[in-house]
Order: sequence, then C-alpha cells, then structure tokens
Amino acid sequence: MIHKRKVAILGATGAVGQRYIQLLQGHPWFEIEVLAASERSAGKKFKDACNWLMETDLPDEIAEMSVVNADVESVENAGDVHLVFSSLPGDLAGPVEAEFGAMYPVFSKASAHRMEQDVPLIVPEINSDHAELIRLQQKIRGWKGFITTDPNCSTIQLVLTLKPLMQFGLKQIVVSTMQALSGAGYPGVPSLDIIDNVVPFISGEEEKMEAETLKILGCFNGECVENADLKLSASCNRVNVKDGHLESVFVKLDQDPTLEQIKEAFINFKGVPQDLLLPSAPKHPIIVRNEKNRPQPRFDRDSGCGMSAVVGRIRKDPIMTFKYMCLGHNTIRGAAGGGILSAELFVAKGLA
Amino acid sequence: MIHKRKVAILGATGAVGQRYIQLLQGHPWFEIEVLAASERSAGKKFKDACNWLMETDLPDEIAEMSVVNADVESVENAGDVHLVFSSLPGDLAGPVEAEFGAMYPVFSKASAHRMEQDVPLIVPEINSDHAELIRLQQKIRGWKGFITTDPNCSTIQLVLTLKPLMQFGLKQIVVSTMQALSGAGYPGVPSLDIIDNVVPFISGEEEKMEAETLKILGCFNGECVENADLKLSASCNRVNVKDGHLESVFVKLDQDPTLEQIKEAFINFKGVPQDLLLPSAPKHPIIVRNEKNRPQPRFDRDSGCGMSAVVGRIRKDPIMTFKYMCLGHNTIRGAAGGGILSAELFVAKGLA
Amino acid sequence: MIHKRKVAILGATGAVGQRYIQLLQGHPWFEIEVLAASERSAGKKFKDACNWLMETDLPDEIAEMSVVNADVESVENAGDVHLVFSSLPGDLAGPVEAEFGAMYPVFSKASAHRMEQDVPLIVPEINSDHAELIRLQQKIRGWKGFITTDPNCSTIQLVLTLKPLMQFGLKQIVVSTMQALSGAGYPGVPSLDIIDNVVPFISGEEEKMEAETLKILGCFNGECVENADLKLSASCNRVNVKDGHLESVFVKLDQDPTLEQIKEAFINFKGVPQDLLLPSAPKHPIIVRNEKNRPQPRFDRDSGCGMSAVVGRIRKDPIMTFKYMCLGHNTIRGAAGGGILSAELFVAKGLA
Amino acid sequence: MIHKRKVAILGATGAVGQRYIQLLQGHPWFEIEVLAASERSAGKKFKDACNWLMETDLPDEIAEMSVVNADVESVENAGDVHLVFSSLPGDLAGPVEAEFGAMYPVFSKASAHRMEQDVPLIVPEINSDHAELIRLQQKIRGWKGFITTDPNCSTIQLVLTLKPLMQFGLKQIVVSTMQALSGAGYPGVPSLDIIDNVVPFISGEEEKMEAETLKILGCFNGECVENADLKLSASCNRVNVKDGHLESVFVKLDQDPTLEQIKEAFINFKGVPQDLLLPSAPKHPIIVRNEKNRPQPRFDRDSGCGMSAVVGRIRKDPIMTFKYMCLGHNTIRGAAGGGILSAELFVAKGLA
Repeated sequence: MIHKRKVAILGATGAVGQRYIQLLQGHPWFEIEVLAASERSAGKKFKDACNWLMETDLPDEIAEMSVVNADVESVENAGDVHLVFSSLPGDLAGPVEAEFGAMYPVFSKASAHRMEQDVPLIVPEINSDHAELIRLQQKIRGWKGFITTDPNCSTIQLVLTLKPLMQFGLKQIVVSTMQALSGAGYPGVPSLDIIDNVVPFISGEEEKMEAETLKILGCFNGECVENADLKLSASCNRVNVKDGHLESVFVKLDQDPTLEQIKEAFINFKGVPQDLLLPSAPKHPIIVRNEKNRPQPRFDRDSGCGMSAVVGRIRKDPIMTFKYMCLGHNTIRGAAGGGILSAELFVAKGLA
Repeated sequence: MIHKRKVAILGATGAVGQRYIQLLQGHPWFEIEVLAASERSAGKKFKDACNWLMETDLPDEIAEMSVVNADVESVENAGDVHLVFSSLPGDLAGPVEAEFGAMYPVFSKASAHRMEQDVPLIVPEINSDHAELIRLQQKIRGWKGFITTDPNCSTIQLVLTLKPLMQFGLKQIVVSTMQALSGAGYPGVPSLDIIDNVVPFISGEEEKMEAETLKILGCFNGECVENADLKLSASCNRVNVKDGHLESVFVKLDQDPTLEQIKEAFINFKGVPQDLLLPSAPKHPIIVRNEKNRPQPRFDRDSGCGMSAVVGRIRKDPIMTFKYMCLGHNTIRGAAGGGILSAELFVAKGLA
Repeated sequence: MIHKRKVAILGATGAVGQRYIQLLQGHPWFEIEVLAASERSAGKKFKDACNWLMETDLPDEIAEMSVVNADVESVENAGDVHLVFSSLPGDLAGPVEAEFGAMYPVFSKASAHRMEQDVPLIVPEINSDHAELIRLQQKIRGWKGFITTDPNCSTIQLVLTLKPLMQFGLKQIVVSTMQALSGAGYPGVPSLDIIDNVVPFISGEEEKMEAETLKILGCFNGECVENADLKLSASCNRVNVKDGHLESVFVKLDQDPTLEQIKEAFINFKGVPQDLLLPSAPKHPIIVRNEKNRPQPRFDRDSGCGMSAVVGRIRKDPIMTFKYMCLGHNTIRGAAGGGILSAELFVAKGLA
Repeated sequence: MIHKRKVAILGATGAVGQRYIQLLQGHPWFEIEVLAASERSAGKKFKDACNWLMETDLPDEIAEMSVVNADVESVENAGDVHLVFSSLPGDLAGPVEAEFGAMYPVFSKASAHRMEQDVPLIVPEINSDHAELIRLQQKIRGWKGFITTDPNCSTIQLVLTLKPLMQFGLKQIVVSTMQALSGAGYPGVPSLDIIDNVVPFISGEEEKMEAETLKILGCFNGECVENADLKLSASCNRVNVKDGHLESVFVKLDQDPTLEQIKEAFINFKGVPQDLLLPSAPKHPIIVRNEKNRPQPRFDRDSGCGMSAVVGRIRKDPIMTFKYMCLGHNTIRGAAGGGILSAELFVAKGLA
C-alpha cells in the first residue's frame, strides 16, 4: 500500500470535520487532499474559515489550504480524490452526499441516509458484513460510488457493548444518557443553558438510538437488513462535560448469566477490525473498569485512543437482568474516528 | 397557636443544618432555641463554628448563638426545647437520635433509623397515616418522645410522582438519577472530581432508593407497614449542578392510561398537607411543565419554594408503559424543607 | 403619581430585554405597554418569539403580548408610550435609538451613543447632574425626546466604588476583570469555549472601561462634560460564572488614607437616588464585606437586589496606594436595573 | 550516563506526587525507587493508599509498590536512593525536608525553606547560578546533602516572562491571577465553593508571589542572593479551571521598547536548560500566541509538554509601559515538571 488514498472532507470547518483533520494527521492509508465546506467558507484559507477547537495546534499545511464549496465540481477542480468523509450538518447532508455518492465512496456521519434500506449503517466490530449492502445500492441507484453511514454518537458505544450480550438472548435495553457538549457541534450549546444545569432533551436523539440499534444489530440476509428482535428505550440528557457520553444501561436477557460471565463476554469481545489489524482499531473494543465509580468521562474517554467503549459497575438488577454504565468518546469513536475505521474496513475488504 | 414551639437543630453547622436555619426564619409555628453540633463546634459562636453556605446572609441573631454539643444534657442546659430536627451525619445519627428520641419528638434526615420496623418513613402527601406508627414505637421502646424519618433526597421527589400512578397499577420503576453536588454535603465532592465530568456512583444511594420507596408507598395496617408490591431499579450519578436532582424515570403499569390521563393524575395530586394548609406545603405537590426540554435543575428547582416535584417529558415507552423526567430540590424538599413539613404534620395531627 | 408611565422595551426578546421585563413587574412608576424587537420576532406572541432565560417564570400577560418591530411607527400603533428602554444590540442601536430619541425619552444600554458629546452617560449615584445635558442635546438636535445612556456592565460597578475615592485624589486605576457569561447576551459564549477555561478577551471591553470611566467621573460645566483627570488600564477576562462581574482593582491616590478611612468612604457613600428614595435605589450603593474571601459572584451578586456594588479585601499595595476586589450584578445594576434607576432619576427630576 | 539515578518521592500520594510519578515514567536519568508519604499511607500498596487523579492510567509497577513513611530511616530501608523529590504539604515539609537534606539532595516544592538565605530558589532558565548557594548551605549546616526549592506555581510562569524584560529596565509588575483548582491539591477546593463562582483569595499566595519574584530575579554575589530592585503587587483568584494558571500582567519599564521588541525578547529567550539540552527543558521557555484571545488554559496549558509559559495579548498600557497575559501549567512547570528540571540542572552541573 505504497500510495496513500487521497480524501476529501465535507464539512471540514465544523467540530467533527476538525476532528477528522486531527485524526488523519500521519494516517498510514489516507491523506487529506480537499477541504470542503459551505459557501460561506469557500475560497478562504482554512485557518480563516475555521474556528479551530482542538487542543492540539492546527497543522500548518492544513491552515494554508483553500476551502472549496461542498459540491462535486468544486471538489474535483481542487484535487484528485479517492474517497469522501462527510460531516455535513443534517439539512445539507442529504442531497450533497447523494451527489458525491454517485461518483465516490462516501463515509457519512450525518443521519440523512442512515435508515435507507440500501444504505449500510456500520460499526465495524459488529456488522462488517453489512458493508456488502453497497453492491445492492450501486445496482439500484446506478452509482459508481456509494454512501455508507455511521450511527449516532450515543448509539455507537452502546451497541458495541450490546453485541457481546446477544449470545445471552438480549431482549430489552433501557438506557438513560448523559451526553457531552461536543455532541451538539459548535457553537452548539450556549453556556448560559448548561452552567449549573442539565438539559433533559436532545432533539431526535432518543428516536435515533431506538431505531439505529435494531438495524446495526440486525442480520444482512443478502438482500436487506432484518432488524434485530429486541426493544430499546432511551432517555437522553445533556450534561456539562466537554467530551464523552456516559450511559446508565439496564438490560433484560433471555438467559441468566453470572456477572462474571457477562464481564468475560465484554472483555473478550473483538471483531473484524481487530482481526484485520486496521490502523484505527483499538486493541480492545470494550474495556472493563473494576473500580466502583468508573467509567467517568474525563478519566476514561481517551481509552483506546478514544476508540474503545468503557464499561463499569456491572451489577444485578431488581427488574431487568443486569445493569451497567458505559462510556465512549463521542467525537472520536462516536464521529471522526468511527468514520475512519469504517473507511479502513471498506478499503481492507476491497470495497473502496 | 400563640406560642411558637421551640426547636433544637442537631448538626446545625452542616449544609442541611444551615438550610434548616434558613427555612425556619419567620416560621409561624417553630422558633430556633438551640443549635447543636459535634464537639469540635461546641462552645463556639455559630458564626465561628460554621462555614455559611447559603446565598442569603446568616441572620445576625443566629450568628451570635453558642453552639452546644449534640447530647441531651447539653441541649437541655441550653434551652427549653419541644422538638428536635436532626441532620447529623450517618455515623453519629444512630445513637444520638435514639438518646433524644427517648425524650423528644425527633425529625430525622439521617438514614440510620429509616428502615426500622417501628419508625415511620414519612412523605406527608403520601403516607401521613404512617405517623401513627410512633404510638407503637413509644410503647415498644418505653419512650416519651419518638423518632420519625424522612427519605433520602433522591427518593422523596420520585415517590411524590409515583403515588398518583398507583391508581393505574404501578408495578415497575427504572430510574437513572443525575444528582446535585449539595446532596453530598460540605465539603462533599472535590471540584477536581467533577469538573468536566460525571461520577456514576453514590455510595448506598441505589440501595436506599430501592428499599425506601417500597416502605413509603406501603400500607400501614395498624401494626406495621407492609411494603408496596412493586419493584424499583436505580442507577445513581453525580453531575456538576449545585442543587436539584433530576431523574429519568421509566414506569410499568398494569393499566394503559393515556398520556393525558397520566398528566391529569400528576396535576391533580394532593395530600393531607394541602388539605390542612400546612405552612410549608406547596400548593401543588407536583408541577407539570409542558415545554419539550424541562424540567431543568437551574430553572425548576425552586418551584413551589423548592417543595414541589417538577415533572416533564411525559411520553410513551417502547418497553415500559411510559417515561418521564422528574426534578426536586434536594436540600429543600429533599432535606430541611421535608423535615419541617413532617414536623408540621405531626403537630397538626396532635402527635408532637 | 397616580398613573404609571407606559414604557416600550426595544430588544425585548434578548437577555437584557427579559431582565427589564422581570424587573418592571410590579414597578410603582412604570408599566410595560409595548414589546419591540427585530423583524424576525415582529408579529409573534412574546412567548413564541423569546427563549425565556430568567429563573422566574414568564408572566402570563407578557407571554401573550404581540411583539412589534422596533421602529417608531410600529411602536406607536401598538400603544401610547411615554418612555423607551433600549437594549438593542450594538449594530442596530445607533439609528433606531436616534429615531426614537427625536420623539421619546430613550434610556439606552447600547454603546452606540455613549461617547457623543451631547449624550449623558449616567450612573445616578455619581453624576445625576449630567442629566441636564439633554437640554443641550434637544436644542442641538431639535428633538422633543432625548437619548441618555448607561455605561458598560463592567464599568458601572467599578465607577460606583471609584467615586468615593475621588476625595483622596484618585489618579490611577489598574483593573483586571473576571466577567460573567450573561454579559455576552444569549446565545453568547458557546459552552465549548468556556468549560474548564477562561477567555482573556472581550471585544471592545477594555477600551470602553478606559474611556467611559473618565466621562462618568467628569464634570459637567453647563456646556459639556470635561473628563476626569485620571487614567485607567483594564484587562478583561470571561470566566465560567453565570452572573456577576468580579474585578481586581489597584488604585493610586494623591493622598494616603488609612484602610479604615477608605472603608468608611465606601460604606458612607450615597447619592441622589438614595436621597430621593428612588424605587430601585439600593439602600447602600456600596456594601463592604469583611470576610477574607469575599466578594464572590454566587454569594454576593444579589446584594441590594443586585443594585449594590460589593467590595472586599481592601489592603495596602506595594506599588499603588491600595487594592481591593469589587463585584456587581452585570444584568441588574450593570444593565436593566441600571436603566430603570436612570429613568427613575429623570422622572424625579422632571426631565422625563 | 548508563545507570539511572534512583529517586524517592516524599508526598507521593498527593496530587503533585502523582504528577512526579507520571512525568518520571521513562525518564532517561531518573527512576523511582521509593514512594514515601504520611503514616496513614505507610505500609499500604500505592494503589490502595492513593486516589489516582491523573488522566493517564496508574502504571502497574507503581501500583504494586509499598508506600513507606516519609522519614530517612524508612526510606533507607526501602531502597538505595540518590536524590529526593519532596511534595510534602507545607506543615510537614519543614522538618522532614531538613532531615533528608542532611543526607540527600532534596528538591522541594514546599514553601517551607524557600526564603531561607542559604537555600536556592531556582527556575533553571533564569538563575541557574543560584544553585551554587548549596555549597554555602552545606558548609553552614554541616550537611552532606542539601535543600533546593522551586517557586510557588503562580510565580514560576510569571518570572519566566519577566526575566527577558529585565534588559529594558523592569521596575514594577501588577498582576491579577486566575488560578486553577489543581493548585490547591486534592481534595482541595470543594465543588460547592467554585461552581458558578470565583474565589478571590488564596491563602499566602500574594505574599509568596511578591517575595519570591525578587529573590529569583536577584543576583547571587557568591555569598548571598541580593533581591532584584523591583516591586510586584499581586491579586490572586481561584477560578473553575482544572489546570493552568492565567495571569493579567501590567509592567512598568525604565525604557520604552516597541511591542515588537518586547515580543522578540519573549520569543528569543532561552537559558541554561536549553543550552544543555536537559531532558525536560522545553525548546521554547516562552511561547507567544498571536491570536487576539489567547492564551487560554484549556488550549495552551500543555504547550511545550506543559513546561513553557505562554504569552499573548501584548499591548500598550495607559498607566504602565505595557500589559500582557501569561499562562503556565501549574502542576507541570509549576510543580513536578519544574522540580524535575531543577534536578536535571543540578545533575548536569555536577551538584547532585
């Protein structure tokens, strides 16, 4: 793999776009060729178009790149691109990603296409076989490229921990989230809304968690994805934390494994990215903390370079089978890091 | 009621003790006669013994009072007391409250005696009839006084909202809490533990919620309290909020009322304190907010002078019957305000 | 004063506009007749046009009022108004306030007109005589109404504490501010900018403090205001506090009073609003705290109903004459409360 | 330098002790041999004695080490030590460090000995020649070892930026600090004290800054350190930030350099650690940010691996000569990192 694949980032000036830029520095397979964003930013140098939010410095060569408009013609004029990461905001993502999907592999963090029947919704450790759905998509749509999607940031970490529970007959999940500020993008949550406060509402979030989980954990039968036979109920809250979504999870299983068996299932879980040694794959997709008061966002969100789900407080439940806490980094595994891992999977499988 | 009853506050220098002092200013039935605390504080002026944490100023006449040791002899030497509010820390509360209970009506915020068979665990709107249990207690223990207790701060607000659901056949409650810093007292949670963070563990809290709820909602049959026939599962978290515990609640009912019927049940709920017009009784024990993103701690904790539970986001649930958010002020209704309302109930019923 | 004066609020939907609404509830002299805002809000009910940010509930009768566009014709069609409070954003305030000023007394919180030669910049305790400047303004501009202005929110509280120091020959002030989030309006500071952070820059703030202070403390000679003969240097910072600007102040005086004399000067300071018993005048314009660690924003911002400046830590300085801390509520005394007090002053003086 | 020097850490379980452990992982010259702390911790495994606060995981081999009591005999029984890092709390540090100083080179973060005449107070880039003072100390005290000290965490970063200004005739410094929570150790500042608040008082901090600066910038004449001929006035505040002290600095110089000359002086400043390529020396002791709103604690505290002072907002001042902001990481450069750099200096100079 001598030549790196050149990539475009759509929505490069946003919070997730910036995280893509940060995580792609020194990536062994991909290099950034084009930065695209809305008309407002087009034509400017990246450093002038973007309010850089990462704690690491903006790389000089990125700073000086010109931002182009997020349409196929502008991107093609700007460089020779092999694949596209999209972190466009929801309202723009639909049509723009479709325009690119006709020509390029598009890895999307937007919700626009997630629930479409011929679009994969991928968490590489869980359902890498769903990637094959793009062949159907290309046939139906007559496209050379394709769109594949990543789940919502509060869903990804949760489904990682649900997958190993399916062996015990997973039936019901009740989850209450405490989600980080960065999940709302930038400028996102006004400080006056969240100081000394919690906001118990995130628009569309509960519906996404409830629907996406069934598709991700579902079966691809060669023609479509059949939803998993389980139910999820979510209650979503915004808390005053920078990064890291923390979730209280209550689970009902058909079987009654011991807490030790559950813990083992979490610890031993791995998937295709680990087998293929994909560059962004964490060694352990799930890390179990044994302390009585973990995981905590500030201490655990960077586990596995932000790509692992962190689980703790596994305990019996008076109503369901058991309960636990889980945590994931919402802008790494839950956004740019998840997108890059998906792209690595598609490349490794010869699909992109 | 010409003469006010003189009261002693045990644990007066602590965070809850201070809230008692604040709320008893100008109270029509009670006046503060003695401030008691640990040996470390005894003999000092209150202003020197206490790090005053309330946003209202320390009243001058309280500032100058001498703190006495929290034992019966010291308190009796300091003044002529009719009833006792105890906000002693858990380890001290057990024996000291028992010493006072032999002689005085003791209204306790500590967990030490809550689950004892002959001790009432009171939320006045819900189970005012449990107050009669003290007659049994006095007989068994040979006491002139008695001990009655208030629930844990995360339990009180929740049970207020559960009581009106019992008419629909309440069976199961799954709850995930986001609890305020003041629930841990002072100095309590170190700032380095909670900045940019959530702590998903509060020692003993889940067990208390799971046990206390069944007793409070239970039936007093004249001899003892029979636990309510329901199950509760709690997951408790500490968030970076000063006051106000917020809870995601998922409820299973036998019946299937409409959301409108549930809302009506919340709004119309009232109890003995409202009928008796007790001085600290909120007009509405439960306030329902219709906005899509409420209740929120900073905006709603002072509803009903901090004595109301605030409910919002009542919605159908894919697994349970319905879900909602509830909020209460943990150091007013959840602590000192709750204790004062209990005392008002006992006085009004001629029990204290 | 049987009939209350009817007022219009320009910029009523903003953070300061909301504070005007809150503070004018039950005001003995003024009642709200018209709520005006930008075109985007015009025609909507106030409750639909505004994201209500106050911790007290939006009054029902205000909620149902229609918002009109902030121009004279729209306001006149909406009601019969005697005076106008403007909390328009800086870019709009200039021309719109001038349009209203031709007809009505306008009390402005915007910076647009503050430094104009014929416009008073008023802190009622300090320079109530500057109000006479409007006669000149009316003559020069040929207006029936006038514009008078209040200082920047970080200036007001500081100058209140500087005024009593002028008797000692005030010469130099070095001040470093720690300003609250609400000073930036709503949505204002993004939470991602301020969590676990301080932002050492507020656009234009240092220049405003340095210029406005000289005008406020200056002398009105019947024709114009001569700047006070002193110098101020400011360094302005935004901190993670909801309300209340805190300032480290270092002062050089010609004389060398004792700390006790300085303290007395602060405590004894009062002005025309106190003499006239204006409804919004705090009893003590300056409150001195003796604790070693006060004033603090959360504990002291509501002193004097948010209308007092709170001073503490008065101590000798190795370079200047002495140093101290001062605090004020930036959206009460620093904004709507200050505007209302100014209007009360003009009414009491027969100027409005 | 084949063999690493073995070190003991006194106060190893505290916040600064933990930072020493973190920073010494993989250090080329030093390895941890003994962990010492108070009696309460002695005899326990480190992982049981310590509430690990670092965001990186506690290294396994450290976790299993036994903590010994912080006295010479216990430390000697535990291992063969060449030098000692002390982060003991102020009250203990005095006598314990003296006991160790008689035998070992002691690098102290405590304030106990800083101002003693024969004890160096070192910032390696500034006054590496003061290290020679230990020869005098050894002679006077008859010690084989010695004590050398690092300044207070709010002083270090400031003096780094003051040193290059001395060429312009530095005369007066007025500084107002906004200091991080970690500066108070653990548990340190209660969360209830700092949420939605600033605390304008840190015990002894202003006095330390005012005294230490003069000694550090002073001249060692072979017999003692003569204080620098300048004056400093400090006002110290605690803000709700995890790490990173931010300071508003106002400076009076004899000369009147341009802002560009001042900026150049900051950028070009370097010292002995840079010349000797000491392992912990930052490439640039001072980093200048050109953005209008930097430095900011969260974004800049890790500059130069937390060992650089970061300067920004250099601008003219109406009273003093110029003003600027400076920031440093208080538990790296301001504590453990500073201690390690001092030890590297002494080793490189053959003094330890």
